[in-house]
Amino acid sequence: MRLAVGVDIGGTKVAAGVVDEDGQVIEVVRRATPTEVVRETETVIADVVRELRDRHDVVAVGIGAAGWIAADRATVLFAPHLAWRNEPLKANLSSRVGLPVTVENDANAAAWAEYRFGAAIGEPVVLCVTLGTGIGGGLVVAGTLFRGAYGVAGEWGHMRQVPDGRRCACGNRGCWEMYASGTALARDARELAEVSPVAAHRLLELAGGDPARLTGHEVRVAAAEGDPAGLEIFTQMGRRLGQGLADLAAVLDPSCIVIGGGISEAGDLLLEPARSAFGESLTGRGFRPAARIELARFAGLSGLIGAADLARRRV
Amino acid sequence: MRLAVGVDIGGTKVAAGVVDEDGQVIEVVRRATPTEVVRETETVIADVVRELRDRHDVVAVGIGAAGWIAADRATVLFAPHLAWRNEPLKANLSSRVGLPVTVENDANAAAWAEYRFGAAIGEPVVLCVTLGTGIGGGLVVAGTLFRGAYGVAGEWGHMRQVPDGRRCACGNRGCWEMYASGTALARDARELAEVSPVAAHRLLELAGGDPARLTGHEVRVAAAEGDPAGLEIFTQMGRRLGQGLADLAAVLDPSCIVIGGGISEAGDLLLEPARSAFGESLTGRGFRPAARIELARFAGLSGLIGAADLARRRV
Amino acid sequence: MRLAVGVDIGGTKVAAGVVDEDGQVIEVVRRATPTEVVRETETVIADVVRELRDRHDVVAVGIGAAGWIAADRATVLFAPHLAWRNEPLKANLSSRVGLPVTVENDANAAAWAEYRFGAAIGEPVVLCVTLGTGIGGGLVVAGTLFRGAYGVAGEWGHMRQVPDGRRCACGNRGCWEMYASGTALARDARELAEVSPVAAHRLLELAGGDPARLTGHEVRVAAAEGDPAGLEIFTQMGRRLGQGLADLAAVLDPSCIVIGGGISEAGDLLLEPARSAFGESLTGRGFRPAARIELARFAGLSGLIGAADLARRRV
Amino acid sequence: MRLAVGVDIGGTKVAAGVVDEDGQVIEVVRRATPTEVVRETETVIADVVRELRDRHDVVAVGIGAAGWIAADRATVLFAPHLAWRNEPLKANLSSRVGLPVTVENDANAAAWAEYRFGAAIGEPVVLCVTLGTGIGGGLVVAGTLFRGAYGVAGEWGHMRQVPDGRRCACGNRGCWEMYASGTALARDARELAEVSPVAAHRLLELAGGDPARLTGHEVRVAAAEGDPAGLEIFTQMGRRLGQGLADLAAVLDPSCIVIGGGISEAGDLLLEPARSAFGESLTGRGFRPAARIELARFAGLSGLIGAADLARRRV
Repeated sequence: MRLAVGVDIGGTKVAAGVVDEDGQVIEVVRRATPTEVVRETETVIADVVRELRDRHDVVAVGIGAAGWIAADRATVLFAPHLAWRNEPLKANLSSRVGLPVTVENDANAAAWAEYRFGAAIGEPVVLCVTLGTGIGGGLVVAGTLFRGAYGVAGEWGHMRQVPDGRRCACGNRGCWEMYASGTALARDARELAEVSPVAAHRLLELAGGDPARLTGHEVRVAAAEGDPAGLEIFTQMGRRLGQGLADLAAVLDPSCIVIGGGISEAGDLLLEPARSAFGESLTGRGFRPAARIELARFAGLSGLIGAADLARRRV
Repeated sequence: MRLAVGVDIGGTKVAAGVVDEDGQVIEVVRRATPTEVVRETETVIADVVRELRDRHDVVAVGIGAAGWIAADRATVLFAPHLAWRNEPLKANLSSRVGLPVTVENDANAAAWAEYRFGAAIGEPVVLCVTLGTGIGGGLVVAGTLFRGAYGVAGEWGHMRQVPDGRRCACGNRGCWEMYASGTALARDARELAEVSPVAAHRLLELAGGDPARLTGHEVRVAAAEGDPAGLEIFTQMGRRLGQGLADLAAVLDPSCIVIGGGISEAGDLLLEPARSAFGESLTGRGFRPAARIELARFAGLSGLIGAADLARRRV
Repeated sequence: MRLAVGVDIGGTKVAAGVVDEDGQVIEVVRRATPTEVVRETETVIADVVRELRDRHDVVAVGIGAAGWIAADRATVLFAPHLAWRNEPLKANLSSRVGLPVTVENDANAAAWAEYRFGAAIGEPVVLCVTLGTGIGGGLVVAGTLFRGAYGVAGEWGHMRQVPDGRRCACGNRGCWEMYASGTALARDARELAEVSPVAAHRLLELAGGDPARLTGHEVRVAAAEGDPAGLEIFTQMGRRLGQGLADLAAVLDPSCIVIGGGISEAGDLLLEPARSAFGESLTGRGFRPAARIELARFAGLSGLIGAADLARRRV
Repeated sequence: MRLAVGVDIGGTKVAAGVVDEDGQVIEVVRRATPTEVVRETETVIADVVRELRDRHDVVAVGIGAAGWIAADRATVLFAPHLAWRNEPLKANLSSRVGLPVTVENDANAAAWAEYRFGAAIGEPVVLCVTLGTGIGGGLVVAGTLFRGAYGVAGEWGHMRQVPDGRRCACGNRGCWEMYASGTALARDARELAEVSPVAAHRLLELAGGDPARLTGHEVRVAAAEGDPAGLEIFTQMGRRLGQGLADLAAVLDPSCIVIGGGISEAGDLLLEPARSAFGESLTGRGFRPAARIELARFAGLSGLIGAADLARRRV
């Protein structure tokens, strides 16, 4: 059985794992991400890959990175949390580790993992939505990752959902990820706490009384307890999620939609309103098959698993 | 050179043509569409195909129909302007005309024509937007029509652009085609004429004084003359078009966007504001290549040309 | 008992009545309105007033006209359905009929009638909303009509309710009367019939199959029968009405809101969703007294009654 | 000349002043506001009034308080920043200070000051908008404060400007004060800084690099320097302000609109876009006189001056 190393490079840590042909993760190591200096990030990646390679017989290395990867899957055009700009990551790492390297967008890699081994095995059109700080997207069509003409397809977090809506880091207003993401969850909680401390009392309690410390975690805890404010925030976000999925289904006609990322751990708190809004908003509902909406199977490891598998297949 | 017949079935007329391997249309015949009785529509199609077949050596027949075509490209699930519901059109016609028949959504066929012979030859990702009564959509990726899991992808006319917006025939509100289509153009003109006859005086003049007779044609004539009301209507519609294209580009990362359909005859009246809004709304603008936006090359014949070519390739 | 004549000048007919000090209408006569020629309209008014004066001992004449009346209550600045522009109506009519004449906005006159004799007797702050072609408004504060600095207060039909919303005859977009008025009712029905004939089948049946003939009347009939489409249209309009009333209540803090005009004949079909939306939208609900919402008592005659009473009080 | 004491009770400090019949402030003293305990707040007020009364011959005391004051001008129904709930403030203070006491909403008092001595002397209909944490409102009609039926008119900060918009402390969404107030100014700056640190670099610099420390002050400084981000924030807020003023003018037909409160110190940075949007949005523009929009004359002292004058007039 051929093994590959998958590396998931996040804003704060690098996770690398040895993955077999069935998608099983044999060993994982983690390091802090040095975000300021390009060379240091690459050194950390090279070190961790060499460490794993010394203990396992690996044939390839796949890198999953948040950012825009050029169509050649070799160059990082832009990474929001790292210093890479037009960085020839594949070339740099290949020479350091002596193995074939493939670079992929992390959400693409995650979608691939779900298609190959997870919640969407064998589906003809898989649409994957990763709810983290923003919305990551991956699309697998007929067993192939869809990357667009220039490598930057799947940025559906930046479809405009609300004209003249909330300001997004991308420079636009009203982007979907402003309404359905971890950022949106925390912000909604903080805004509620600021304007209605009474309604948000349980949320505030969980945050030690400080609205600024409210994150998605407290909302999830409160909602799981049945707190009305927590439930309302999740219900509203779930509905925004479902509406956007209906827009995407009009475009892409998927057979399976996979919801992943940290926020997806909320499970039915999020998926129930999402499925409900999707069902009410899908154009042509009743006259067409509707995609099923599933939770991702590999929450935190999907990027690593998918990157490893993609790398192995290219060898 | 192998010839194929392409048939474009519209709500009011059937157009059939013999198309060669270079996309050249050798002969076209047209018939009125009998819309009420399924058999009659099929009889008209069969008659017109036999007529052309008698004069030309054709190898296949491609049908382009407005409606939802199942993934098998044989069955019409639903056609808004015709009586077909789950109609096995391919089987019925094949037996009547004695030739291989392929059924395709008309906007898909049009996109294929533009990719093969028109405005987007050789482009890796072609997004085609057909502005007629509504918005038709077709997508060609790496030389293959993208049809989705169940055959109904490309319905981007039903992405929601305006929450709680205008009521669409699909049962939703705020669909894109409510703001960018021939229907929208005529409606905007009529609404302007009803509320501000003075502002709409030239439009009304062109319609013989009757707001109910205003169509996209009068708006185009007025705008071409420089009439401020006509120009404002086109500018606004162009901007709505461009915004939706930016949403689609976030999802699909096309290299080329082709604007076709009857409304596209307005040319720069529409494309200039569309390009401008697209450029201002594309997420990641400045850090990524942007698709070029082109007018379709084959306005009225694209469906027929594309259907014929698709049919020939499957023989 | 002193009698006065009240005249209500609408776009299609002139109604004049003799009204006593208790608001009782003793006699009414009606004439068609000549809309094109200013002199003719005034002649019709003068004729009808002289006819009534010959049979009754009247002391004054009050005119209620749709339009903007200057603060002097003598001049019609602008009337949307008539030819008056800066018309010295009071002077012209006084000399013709030999009686003191007062000119008032028709919705102001209607509000006054409801305050003096109708649904809001003795209320400290009466907000009157007249739902006709558009929205007319009148406000009575501490027993005095509120007219604003220049005579044109109460135009709340033109508060913007929807940013970038429907085009209004006033030149703006999203005005309240585009969403809550007879025009809105008929338009919503027509739009539904055009996009979803199946959903609108009962409405269409009532209109003889022709969407263009749909008016508020058919919607009311259908809704009264329990037709889901008719009910949905009224519910939505009622909610839009209630939301706008909540906005006005934030500004004006009324004790009583009176809903009049032709559309108000729908009664609870309209008022139930309006009261519900008002209750859910009123700022400070629960910490303040909320205005009661009542149907007007004098549907068609309120303008005439109020104009007569105002005129008599000024003598 | 009869003197009166005016007291302005804010969330953080109490300001009391002796005001003469011409609106001149003879002496001011300030104390911190004890916000938790009702009695303590009243004790502070009584102390400061007694201190001033010992040095001046005053005839009455006027209290201006942020909150809802009952129609009797004696009871505080609710004060957002203080512990008062149905507090009989007039009775409590009268007995403590031995002078007639009147209680008024602070924005009403400010409007009165501007009408009597400031930017709107002698105007028939004065609409005053106080931009602080939220939007305070006061209306003077024909020389009388308009208070509504229950004392809570003028809450135009809670007109809904954006359907489904930002959450407001009042429990609704989309209230005007969410888009035009000191809170909105600071929030817009912080949101810009969070999503686009590069665009907000000057704002961040002024805040010592910490987005959480951004307030309206930094936006004003940056805008005054010509910083594009600061200017854009003010322009957008000014336009939101102007649009809401146009809505109010449709309802109230004021002759003069006065913009006060801390944010109004930005002057033309705010008023230019506000006047521009007002002019473009006023219904009937061109066919009616338009209110002039003025800066308040008494920025910080208007509440105190107005409260004193109102109290004196009631003696």
